Amino acid sequence: MRARVLVELKPGMLDPEGATVKRALKNLGFSEVEDVHVGKVVELELDSEDEEAARERVKEMCGRLLANPVIHSYEIEIG
Amino acid sequence: MRARVLVELKPGMLDPEGATVKRALKNLGFSEVEDVHVGKVVELELDSEDEEAARERVKEMCGRLLANPVIHSYEIEIG
Repeated sequence: MRARVLVELKPGMLDPEGATVKRALKNLGFSEVEDVHVGKVVELELDSEDEEAARERVKEMCGRLLANPVIHSYEIEIG
Repeated sequence: MRARVLVELKPGMLDPEGATVKRALKNLGFSEVEDVHVGKVVELELDSEDEEAARERVKEMCGRLLANPVIHSYEIEIG
């Protein structure tokens, strides 16, 4: 089973990479760009049959390693 | 309009961050983890009304800045 975790900075956290990408895109002529945020995506291949159980385990992985609850929010997509 | 770009390493490219996360998860007892790949997610807020036009522009952004076509593949989600 595949799982995808999107780890992003919480609103209000400083995002220098996002700010840099935004400036670079504007400089390249993409004037429609209003805001940019950069985060991480973690793709997991799991030996697991049950979707709900897998989601719980991935949540645990986020809490213990993949995300820092102080600064990150995350989304989990299964399958 | 919001757009999300997932930038990942092409299959076969060395992914040391993914390998490190995989090892760390296994060490934490997540024995069901078979493979891990780490990539980047870029969230864009665009001043754009037309979905298809926005997708084309984001594709162009990927080609010019967000992804390196030699080593990266990417997915674009609009809306």
